[in-house]
Amino acid sequence: MTQSTDTQVSAQQQQVEEDLVQRVLASFENTPDPRLKQVMQSLTTHLHSFIRDVRLTEDEWNYAIDFLTRVGHITDDKRQEFVLLSDTLGASMQTIAVNNEAYENATEATVFGPFFVDDAPEIEHGGDISFGAEGQPAWVEGTVTDTEGNPVPNARIEVWECDEDGLYDVQYTDGRMAGRAHLFTDEQGNYKFWGLTPVPYPIPHDGPVGQMLQSVGRSPVRAAHLHFMVTAPEKRTLVTHIFVDGDPQLEIGDSVFGVKDSLIKTFEEQPAGTPTPDGRDLDGKIWAKTRFDIVLAPAEV
Amino acid sequence: MTQSTDTQVSAQQQQVEEDLVQRVLASFENTPDPRLKQVMQSLTTHLHSFIRDVRLTEDEWNYAIDFLTRVGHITDDKRQEFVLLSDTLGASMQTIAVNNEAYENATEATVFGPFFVDDAPEIEHGGDISFGAEGQPAWVEGTVTDTEGNPVPNARIEVWECDEDGLYDVQYTDGRMAGRAHLFTDEQGNYKFWGLTPVPYPIPHDGPVGQMLQSVGRSPVRAAHLHFMVTAPEKRTLVTHIFVDGDPQLEIGDSVFGVKDSLIKTFEEQPAGTPTPDGRDLDGKIWAKTRFDIVLAPAEV
Repeated sequence: MTQSTDTQVSAQQQQVEEDLVQRVLASFENTPDPRLKQVMQSLTTHLHSFIRDVRLTEDEWNYAIDFLTRVGHITDDKRQEFVLLSDTLGASMQTIAVNNEAYENATEATVFGPFFVDDAPEIEHGGDISFGAEGQPAWVEGTVTDTEGNPVPNARIEVWECDEDGLYDVQYTDGRMAGRAHLFTDEQGNYKFWGLTPVPYPIPHDGPVGQMLQSVGRSPVRAAHLHFMVTAPEKRTLVTHIFVDGDPQLEIGDSVFGVKDSLIKTFEEQPAGTPTPDGRDLDGKIWAKTRFDIVLAPAEV
Repeated sequence: MTQSTDTQVSAQQQQVEEDLVQRVLASFENTPDPRLKQVMQSLTTHLHSFIRDVRLTEDEWNYAIDFLTRVGHITDDKRQEFVLLSDTLGASMQTIAVNNEAYENATEATVFGPFFVDDAPEIEHGGDISFGAEGQPAWVEGTVTDTEGNPVPNARIEVWECDEDGLYDVQYTDGRMAGRAHLFTDEQGNYKFWGLTPVPYPIPHDGPVGQMLQSVGRSPVRAAHLHFMVTAPEKRTLVTHIFVDGDPQLEIGDSVFGVKDSLIKTFEEQPAGTPTPDGRDLDGKIWAKTRFDIVLAPAEV
């Protein structure tokens, strides 16, 4: 896409528009922080190129102001519509991509999403993150190593996911804390816990972002996933998910562009009554198991 | 500014980022409305180019989400911070530029601003728009013609401006309506009214946009101006201001990039006691007079 090459725009008009861009760029010339100056000037350049490329109408500008106002007004402590907007435009995932370049065999990152909370409970190895959230039990285990295969002991693993109805705890109004926890790897870098087999769910789509998706014919549904955030000293923090092999939404398309092939894992369904790894009695429920071996990049790469 | 030519970005990494852009563009491919499809795909292209060009950090992305959230939360019926943001980035003026190409000798357009209200009172020719707003009285007169010099009778002229303290009526909490009115041209296309000599004033800068301006070392002050909106059948609606020749802010820079040389007018100050054009007794006050001849383009150009 090139700037203002529309042949209907006269050279004189292009000059008027370009002069304005230059005046706005010049207004940031005295920004004390050089990084802020760079960001604002680049933002100016791309924002004006967008307006000029599409020949944005005044009605469309008004619509955009109103749209952003509605995004702002639906946003509160529990609902972050600007994050949903960034997610559905792929801007969140692009920011992740820019900041988490592939490094050797390190596990790939994906979007953080709006549903993390800081104070999820700690569980023991083999503990259950569901805290009453309903769904098919899933045994998740793996190791955390560095890129040379050395175990990373005591790495902090935060995990969170929705229940079988596609809702995170914070989407309920009763203040529950469920479907989330943290645990630490052991001396050999191992971890294991009971979670739920992830299910696809729509991002909140009863607001302006949902209207946008509907207008462009896009599904609000996210491919089924289980969130991980892994932190350890001198390691790059890993924010990622694992996805479920065979989930049809992987074909339809994840609404926030978070899928990477390396993150798709098999959740092996176990017939009812199959003994569990830790002897837990699931009362005849079908359960699944999966393995996710995590490789952390060094902090400075 | 070109995309991702940063030599530190590997070809492999560039491919990852470009693939993501293509996936997001493809997600809009089935948009039923071709114009919406064009706008969303162009927005995607420029937004991703911005993120990639500046190598936006995750902290900066978080800051941007929080900034937009604060812009949303300060916005209400009286305060439109998204408009201020658009104005201070020159996006409003660029939209005006794109939609109001210079047409022969037609009067140039500039920004609408956030302070227009729909139901300002009508005044007679020579009436006073101040309705109690304080300031130096200014006699404003002129004609409205088409581009061939024919008078445009019965054109509706909306005028609005701040008081000598730099505040519009809607910025007071007492519900006053002052410093605004509308009138119609006579059969010869003439108009005349009493207003106030415009003064420079800061845009509302106690919110996130004000913080942005401060961070980049920019003045929030707008060059002194008097707003006009002129409508007439089969004519392009003109939204513009006149500026005050000699206003030092014209040199410092208008915070919303609204100034055009053709819109700078002389407000001739009249010594106290100088007889007024309509015989009005100003009780010895100094007053000013100016002339603004308005030329309307045809509606379809």
